[in-house]
Amino acid sequence: MTDSPFELVVGNSPSGPRLGVLPTTHGAVRTPAFMPVGTQATVKTLEPFEVAQTGAEILLSNTYHLMLRPGVEVIERAGGLHAFMRWDRPILTDSGGFQLYSLASQVKVTDEAATFKSHLDGTPFVLTPERAVQLQAGYGSDVMMALDHLVGLPSSASRVAEAFRRTHEWLGRCIVERRRLAEQGSVGSLFGIVQGGLDPGLRAESAGLVGEADVAGCAIGGLSVGESKAEMAAMLDVVTPLLPVDKPRYLMGVGSPEDLWEGVARGVDMFDCVLPTRLARNAGLFTPTGRVNIRRMEYRDRHAPLDETCDCHTCRTYTAAYLHHLYRSREILGLKLGSIHNVRFLIRQTETMRAAIADGTFDDARAEFRSRYRAVGDEAPVEESC
Amino acid sequence: MTDSPFELVVGNSPSGPRLGVLPTTHGAVRTPAFMPVGTQATVKTLEPFEVAQTGAEILLSNTYHLMLRPGVEVIERAGGLHAFMRWDRPILTDSGGFQLYSLASQVKVTDEAATFKSHLDGTPFVLTPERAVQLQAGYGSDVMMALDHLVGLPSSASRVAEAFRRTHEWLGRCIVERRRLAEQGSVGSLFGIVQGGLDPGLRAESAGLVGEADVAGCAIGGLSVGESKAEMAAMLDVVTPLLPVDKPRYLMGVGSPEDLWEGVARGVDMFDCVLPTRLARNAGLFTPTGRVNIRRMEYRDRHAPLDETCDCHTCRTYTAAYLHHLYRSREILGLKLGSIHNVRFLIRQTETMRAAIADGTFDDARAEFRSRYRAVGDEAPVEESC
Repeated sequence: MTDSPFELVVGNSPSGPRLGVLPTTHGAVRTPAFMPVGTQATVKTLEPFEVAQTGAEILLSNTYHLMLRPGVEVIERAGGLHAFMRWDRPILTDSGGFQLYSLASQVKVTDEAATFKSHLDGTPFVLTPERAVQLQAGYGSDVMMALDHLVGLPSSASRVAEAFRRTHEWLGRCIVERRRLAEQGSVGSLFGIVQGGLDPGLRAESAGLVGEADVAGCAIGGLSVGESKAEMAAMLDVVTPLLPVDKPRYLMGVGSPEDLWEGVARGVDMFDCVLPTRLARNAGLFTPTGRVNIRRMEYRDRHAPLDETCDCHTCRTYTAAYLHHLYRSREILGLKLGSIHNVRFLIRQTETMRAAIADGTFDDARAEFRSRYRAVGDEAPVEESC
Repeated sequence: MTDSPFELVVGNSPSGPRLGVLPTTHGAVRTPAFMPVGTQATVKTLEPFEVAQTGAEILLSNTYHLMLRPGVEVIERAGGLHAFMRWDRPILTDSGGFQLYSLASQVKVTDEAATFKSHLDGTPFVLTPERAVQLQAGYGSDVMMALDHLVGLPSSASRVAEAFRRTHEWLGRCIVERRRLAEQGSVGSLFGIVQGGLDPGLRAESAGLVGEADVAGCAIGGLSVGESKAEMAAMLDVVTPLLPVDKPRYLMGVGSPEDLWEGVARGVDMFDCVLPTRLARNAGLFTPTGRVNIRRMEYRDRHAPLDETCDCHTCRTYTAAYLHHLYRSREILGLKLGSIHNVRFLIRQTETMRAAIADGTFDDARAEFRSRYRAVGDEAPVEESC
């Protein structure tokens, strides 16, 4: 079966908070886990040692972006993505399915393959389920994602049904291709992706198909793309009870503080999102009571850490007044210090949740978080692509 | 007299290479020294610990920029510039004279004061020699610069003469003001600035006046503003022989590798320039044989350090292929890694020069550098302002 058996430490309900460990050849990942996003082989503004200092145990990188630039051949000759970017902890790579939907141009999808042109320079590419696995193996990914077919909504019922069918057929081909590569040598594990939009019936069917497949984990895709938080929660309530208890569940592209708590409450183990780094590049910083804009004049003379309770490098070293000055002066250093803070904030949420699950106090901890943290409306989460 | 006596270790000629130590309350600076520029209380893209890792023992910051934003009051309430930006080594601040010439709008200069408007938002300011010293004392500067009056060339002879006279009168007022502040408490030392454009007579007269003044060091200003390297060298040949041997000489705004060697050969002890960080933000990186553009395709597959002989963090950690990828992908991390490399390259030039001076082999080392390093034409050096 899989070569990355998930170890469930606490939590035997399929849809409640769980504590686990995901082993990989680059080390173990404790779950619930948040994965910072290194779209182009870098978590924007940060060096790998700085990402590690936030406590991140795994990061995500993007098959689509890396196949366009620098190309898998360059990464292979570098000795893989870990060596290329100097990150020695686990890497999960997505398959490119989301970027085919969100970023690529002139995309044509048949059962056999997706053909598309690079959004950078129009170079034509062909991506098949087999190729998506080969690329991820070429990067040296620890956790590979199956290629899925997303369609924008609204679409005709027949088109949605076709993409749905194709996603699960492609999962089968990814499994076969991964098995073939595994016979030749070490290769990362493979996660399947549950799709189905906001249709409870399709979601349930997809959860069943992915849950029964020979995969190391089950991702939940196609959420966090503009729907409300209530709609996302409703889909999780449909999906996670149907997934196998003994495999990790990964909610793709999700990563606001409140979404992490709600996801874990419903049995999700892994998350990724560009939100912390993208927000930081736009002066939005997390605090225990909610997001703030560091450019606001109230910080001009605040000669104390932005968050006195924060243990991140930024808060332990610099004042809010200095951060304010850097952002006002459009200094690149500000973007980096803000990114460190925001990533650490999300990682610390997962640490708090893991401790609470271990103690059996998750519900209290979640209530405490909700009473304190003012989430930003019911707005659409930030999309995954960069 | 001065409270920062310069210690000359090697070199008793006024116009040959010298080895020295400049003590300050934040530690000693070994000369020849290169000062990275932290215009807005940050060396662009770098944290202070990263600047320190390059071996920099002192950095420069800008009175003009800091008075506009965040304002001296904010920095004073932060506990001074060192505390504000978390740099615990010496800081030299320029006086604002150069930015009045290059950046401010609606500048009017009388013997009493310069009035101008912020280039950021039009806020009106008044700067006197006394105020320039007060501001620098407010920042907690270790080495303060006297306010000078620069005029663009060509200007009428009477206008040049007036600015020249005014610069030396203002020096006198800065000395008096610094003395007054020193009686009240600890205050940094003061350097005067030799002006005179490309006129050997004026330069010689200015060198005499500044050299006789009660200053801790003698800066050479108004060079590296568009003249040729030969013209700059000719002015140094006029000025340094006339300066006191026992005070440090600081060539303002100069900092290409070749200019450092030529300056030290002529008796200069200190340099500053935005060149290494500005070049790095534009993909220009120093190598032992000259500058290169890291975006060039020849680096795409170079899975080795950009410079095998370089001991900087960037070259010890990342490959040229990875840097190339970051620059091609317009990733902020590239700008930072390039800045580390370039600053370290210049700092290493000073380390090499200091060792050679100590060994009595400076001429050989300079010949070796010149035979190896291909300088970029006879082009104008980068200007100081940002």
